[in-house]
Amino acid sequence: MDIKNWRHAFKVDPAKNITDHALERLAESGTDGLIIGGSDGVTLENVLDLLARIRRYSVPVALEVSTVDSVTPGFDFYFIPTVLNASKTEWINGIHHAALKEYGHMMNWEEVIAEGYCIVNVDCKAAKLTGVDKVPDEEDVVAYARMAEHLFKLPVFYLEYSGMFGDPAIVKAAARVLENTKLFYGGGIRNAEDAREMARLADTVIVGNVIYEDLEAALTTVQAVQTMSH
Amino acid sequence: MDIKNWRHAFKVDPAKNITDHALERLAESGTDGLIIGGSDGVTLENVLDLLARIRRYSVPVALEVSTVDSVTPGFDFYFIPTVLNASKTEWINGIHHAALKEYGHMMNWEEVIAEGYCIVNVDCKAAKLTGVDKVPDEEDVVAYARMAEHLFKLPVFYLEYSGMFGDPAIVKAAARVLENTKLFYGGGIRNAEDAREMARLADTVIVGNVIYEDLEAALTTVQAVQTMSH
Repeated sequence: MDIKNWRHAFKVDPAKNITDHALERLAESGTDGLIIGGSDGVTLENVLDLLARIRRYSVPVALEVSTVDSVTPGFDFYFIPTVLNASKTEWINGIHHAALKEYGHMMNWEEVIAEGYCIVNVDCKAAKLTGVDKVPDEEDVVAYARMAEHLFKLPVFYLEYSGMFGDPAIVKAAARVLENTKLFYGGGIRNAEDAREMARLADTVIVGNVIYEDLEAALTTVQAVQTMSH
Repeated sequence: MDIKNWRHAFKVDPAKNITDHALERLAESGTDGLIIGGSDGVTLENVLDLLARIRRYSVPVALEVSTVDSVTPGFDFYFIPTVLNASKTEWINGIHHAALKEYGHMMNWEEVIAEGYCIVNVDCKAAKLTGVDKVPDEEDVVAYARMAEHLFKLPVFYLEYSGMFGDPAIVKAAARVLENTKLFYGGGIRNAEDAREMARLADTVIVGNVIYEDLEAALTTVQAVQTMSH
């Protein structure tokens, strides 16, 4: 299924422990996809382990690439983040260049989805890693959304609140200026109500941390989103 | 005329003096377009002066934006460089973000052409300005070309040798991996033979400095390119 139609996805961190039973419930929850990705501790070994345990289910699986070393065939999609508000060039296009030098000739571009990230929570791990040191305000976010849509023609603009629930006014402002680029929202979704609120504004809602803290609550977010009209 | 079909363009620097007669000869030379742009000394005043003197001719005119302050309506196209091998984030997407914050709501995106620059000559002014300190080799250039085409879906990949004639093997290698993205070549074209050599490899050949040093030689590059099949 085309990611343009994704309304809900779970983000599963290869560096965190998860039981086979929990994985099965996520895979068969009715979510549109599983995104395998994390900010640190991601290795080829833990990615392959998760891949092997997930591929028995029919749910689409994407690898969100954070280190070149952990890339492996077998995923339906490869999400490539470019952190638009990073202060370190390596996270805008530097690691990408290194990866393209090594693997550019053998990449299947139909499986590759470039995501324009805007990291809003400056205290999260991804912010520290990429050098996001200033909280972008609504105007900043709107300008990054336009950059994703018009300048770089990215298929996805990813508003990342990582661990904190976002400001609906900002999410709405980003949504308003996007047309071809899809808006992914991630951060702080802990229950069905949170998921519904952000799904009213964003194209796709990503649920991550709560998987590890309260699996039942995480699972309720699927139906909350999937029963909405958009 | 769509820039996809441009085979030849002159780059006119607003910070340099040029007579009305020379401008007329460039405008009526049969070139596909004039690109107004330079690395330093570009001001709103000298851009407007050049615009006023050029608009009497029917040749398409593009403003290549290097400072936000010098942007003005009246051009057919606005070329926005993103320097893919810059070490300063501001030249990859920082100035762009500032400009989008200010003008994003009023931009006509059909007139905007994002150019993915790869600056090869590390001694040129643009290299110093943007922090290009390492000469990209053939593999580097190919990886940047793929980045322009696939990751950022840029309409133009601009191989900039600025003042020095490029290595045809590298230009050819870039051309080979580009499909939807057009290859602009600029740098060191001083006569018809130089122009023909690069026009065999690149989609569009940009002729700049020689305009100011030997106008007659510059004018011979137009027919040299326009009489070739591609």
